[in-house]
Amino acid sequence: MTDTQRPTELTATPNNEGIDAAVAAARRVVEALLHTGDRSVVEMAQVANQLDAVAEHLEQHAPTREERLVDMWSGEGVTRHDPVTGPQNAIAPPLHLSGLEDGSIEGRVVLGMAYQGPPGCAHGGISALLLDHTLGVANHWAGDSGMTGTLTLRYHRPTPLFEELHITARQESVDGRKIRTTGEISAGGEVCVSADGIFINKHLPRPR
Amino acid sequence: MTDTQRPTELTATPNNEGIDAAVAAARRVVEALLHTGDRSVVEMAQVANQLDAVAEHLEQHAPTREERLVDMWSGEGVTRHDPVTGPQNAIAPPLHLSGLEDGSIEGRVVLGMAYQGPPGCAHGGISALLLDHTLGVANHWAGDSGMTGTLTLRYHRPTPLFEELHITARQESVDGRKIRTTGEISAGGEVCVSADGIFINKHLPRPR
Repeated sequence: MTDTQRPTELTATPNNEGIDAAVAAARRVVEALLHTGDRSVVEMAQVANQLDAVAEHLEQHAPTREERLVDMWSGEGVTRHDPVTGPQNAIAPPLHLSGLEDGSIEGRVVLGMAYQGPPGCAHGGISALLLDHTLGVANHWAGDSGMTGTLTLRYHRPTPLFEELHITARQESVDGRKIRTTGEISAGGEVCVSADGIFINKHLPRPR
Repeated sequence: MTDTQRPTELTATPNNEGIDAAVAAARRVVEALLHTGDRSVVEMAQVANQLDAVAEHLEQHAPTREERLVDMWSGEGVTRHDPVTGPQNAIAPPLHLSGLEDGSIEGRVVLGMAYQGPPGCAHGGISALLLDHTLGVANHWAGDSGMTGTLTLRYHRPTPLFEELHITARQESVDGRKIRTTGEISAGGEVCVSADGIFINKHLPRPR
């Protein structure tokens, strides 16, 4: 990569402290619960109690759902709460995306046990989730963005868990309010899943 | 629903004890972390420590990844670990699916903050994840199943969070190894997302 192709961060960078550190620990719990083999009911009841106590504590001083939504969507820039890249969302792997000067975007991610479909492989719907989001971010990077109208996914080979996946996307064309965007997930240089999307240039109002 | 259309459970039923109770508590933590507003860095560091301690405890006596995969995929019947219906996977909402005698399947689910895309609405990729999985289960219910080849999603209107979604799917045809399956997500009687999939009748070997 030359200096003129230095990538631009397009997703929120985890702070490794505060809420982001707690979410990273929650991700570790989700994965550990899946890795856990046979445990006694008593032992798991203790784990349930500990997790319920954490949730209880967080819920106690939380704002209402409406207040929280307004707060979440205030300000500009990248979201910190989405289920693909969000450092505040324990469901997100999280995927980290960068914009390149040629107009495309890319990211790398390793998926764990929580994203499994067929044995040892990513769930086809998880690949769809990653690609839908990445195509949306590619639209933001290109300038015209919107909501998914149609998304077509082609599964070429199984997408492996536990190894680095390379995800790329680019906006192909804009025709009035219709935006066409493509992308793919590859592993070891081979395409696993490709996506072709039509997005409509409209946005839902933000909560106030 | 008449007696001749009594639904058949097609997904694992949570036990509400043992690992399932711990996973339900982990889901509550994931959601509470997203609902949490401004908290001090010190307070969130405490939460991170508590969650890390739970993960540490679970990891200590866990089998190796290879052993765990063999164990996960032993036996027959529904999976307990997938990211859509799995009672052992905190990423799963979880969706619960039933088979009807007319050959179709259906389920109901309410999605929380963790599944958000546009403000107050489900992420388009989350709808894709739910539909890909539901189409796969519809194939199992019909008898011929396989891996996703092509999946086309059409987004008709935003899919709301915090209210009941109705998800349906059915196998339309089988032509050699090619299976065609459709499904949709609706809310309040209106279709939000529809899916049309081509599945290929092949299965990856289970880990041994």
